[in-house]
Amino acid sequence: MAHIQLPEGLPGIRGALVYSPETSKPLCDLVQVLLTGPHTLTPAEREMIATYVSSQNDCYYCQTCHGSTAAQHLGGNDADYELIAHIKQDYEATPISAKMKALLAIAGQVQKGGKHVTTKDIERARQQGATDKEIHDTVLIAAAFCMFNRYVDGLAAWQPTDPAIYREIGKQTSQQGYVGRDLKKPLQAIAAKQINS
Amino acid sequence: MAHIQLPEGLPGIRGALVYSPETSKPLCDLVQVLLTGPHTLTPAEREMIATYVSSQNDCYYCQTCHGSTAAQHLGGNDADYELIAHIKQDYEATPISAKMKALLAIAGQVQKGGKHVTTKDIERARQQGATDKEIHDTVLIAAAFCMFNRYVDGLAAWQPTDPAIYREIGKQTSQQGYVGRDLKKPLQAIAAKQINS
Repeated sequence: MAHIQLPEGLPGIRGALVYSPETSKPLCDLVQVLLTGPHTLTPAEREMIATYVSSQNDCYYCQTCHGSTAAQHLGGNDADYELIAHIKQDYEATPISAKMKALLAIAGQVQKGGKHVTTKDIERARQQGATDKEIHDTVLIAAAFCMFNRYVDGLAAWQPTDPAIYREIGKQTSQQGYVGRDLKKPLQAIAAKQINS
Repeated sequence: MAHIQLPEGLPGIRGALVYSPETSKPLCDLVQVLLTGPHTLTPAEREMIATYVSSQNDCYYCQTCHGSTAAQHLGGNDADYELIAHIKQDYEATPISAKMKALLAIAGQVQKGGKHVTTKDIERARQQGATDKEIHDTVLIAAAFCMFNRYVDGLAAWQPTDPAIYREIGKQTSQQGYVGRDLKKPLQAIAAKQINS
């Protein structure tokens, strides 16, 4: 049970965003700018950073949603979901670019605390071709998910475990982004379960 | 030196906000909603939560700016600055309300990680009269400063130590809030120092 009375049937951050519309707007605007739209890092790559940080913060909802969104951006096949699972487990051994590995290393340091990012971490990323903007956005994506993860877990928001729910969220988000969604609309995978139960 | 090329002469988060206007807007909108405007917690009380979390994250710039803003909201006297210093050191022994102590305890748990917030922490706050909205906003303020602190320290942004700079920031922010400021305009305390040096 959540620590406060959140709207029922809305998983993870969705209940909190509907509960507090005045903070929902800047939060959704932030994640929209960071994870969608034109960028030298693909949406899938930026979602990988969000997913990895969320897994390091042990936030089940966020790592599963953003992992699913990353996988959907890649094509939505089982192999894409397996790649994301591999990144969370050991990104250095995953078939992604050397630049992405260096950026994930920076993100991992930010998750521990801002001061953990070293000149060496930055140099490694630059050697792999990372630009100032890519480093800036990696730091801010990682920092932002240290917020989102704490927001979800700090309220003890409902986090369902049915993979169908996260497949649906990943599809929805990869197609529609984070702004202008009707967050109050029940997810089909949740509605179907309630009818069947 | 910052990890990336940030605009010169702008301390802490200011350089990063000017560097990245597209993320600056939602970040400033978020902190404006959370820390300013009508609320059952005063602006000083909400700034205390931001200050305490920033000190737990060891972010010098954020804890000093928001501590100064809290002190300015309280009157801006030396005693107000001493109160804020006391809160950072040992809020349970500081002359603030029992409700604020309970909310700071929740904020401290969020700083460690969302799952650290327990039913007991929430019950304590409720017993001291905290509402769902106050608990929600405390969790989100604490979570947001886990982002802002990591953003500043993760970029190794310039953090001056001259107290006059932070007095000026505290006065400016307590009067003008976080939106619509000209962040590129040099702070007087910094400009004066450059002229004198």
